[in-house]
Amino acid sequence: MNLTRFTDYSLRVLIFVGVHRERLVSIQEVSEAYRISRNHIVKVVHQLGRLGFLENVRGRKGGIRLAREPKDIRVGDVVRATESGFVLLECFDPRQNRCAITPACRLMDTLATGLERFMETLDGVTLQDLLKPKTALKHLLAPRR
Amino acid sequence: MNLTRFTDYSLRVLIFVGVHRERLVSIQEVSEAYRISRNHIVKVVHQLGRLGFLENVRGRKGGIRLAREPKDIRVGDVVRATESGFVLLECFDPRQNRCAITPACRLMDTLATGLERFMETLDGVTLQDLLKPKTALKHLLAPRR
Repeated sequence: MNLTRFTDYSLRVLIFVGVHRERLVSIQEVSEAYRISRNHIVKVVHQLGRLGFLENVRGRKGGIRLAREPKDIRVGDVVRATESGFVLLECFDPRQNRCAITPACRLMDTLATGLERFMETLDGVTLQDLLKPKTALKHLLAPRR
Repeated sequence: MNLTRFTDYSLRVLIFVGVHRERLVSIQEVSEAYRISRNHIVKVVHQLGRLGFLENVRGRKGGIRLAREPKDIRVGDVVRATESGFVLLECFDPRQNRCAITPACRLMDTLATGLERFMETLDGVTLQDLLKPKTALKHLLAPRR
């Protein structure tokens, strides 16, 4: 069981941008701070823009910033939007499902309830909560010499 | 977010064997009932044996059967044993983790708590619960002509 790398990087980008709210952030510095390839960050930033989490200010002095208040970005919202699917078992994808016992099977209900409990936990935490250790995060994200 | 196919097939094998508790079951009939390749089922059965969920009776009239009472097999136990890992984010695997903010990051705690809620739900359901629609399951698993 895992989340995609895309979700992982999305959350990290939001934390970086959230920690530096007083200014615009460049893709380059996010890439360097986390030592993640620029290409990955470009894709993540583009998608987070489409999803309404980030705003892209164009131009020579441009950069990215949060499109919403940190308190209005729940971890669950990000995970729900960036995960490509929640196919816990074959039967979670009706188009692909060939499992013979689906009509009488109680597994799907069990796992769907478990998934709800998981997402409820993530919905109880916002980006604002994640940013509380701001000084420590800023320090860890600072450029290395 | 998904579970491995191995976990999916493991749960299905346990349901098949549980539905036919009055006799030994062959790998061939499980494979046919679910239309899953024999090779996959062989691997799953072998692993479920090693994990103490199934018993293998050798010989010409041999087959497989449950090694424990259905009420003593929690869905959570199976998932915990058959999933290769619960690496929700890079930081869940200390050997691979290179994330710069790990010391001050609250994401891991959030996701670990969510995972606990997920597993608690699965621990609240046993194979016995899954077997309750027994007649319907038996019908759906019956050989097709």
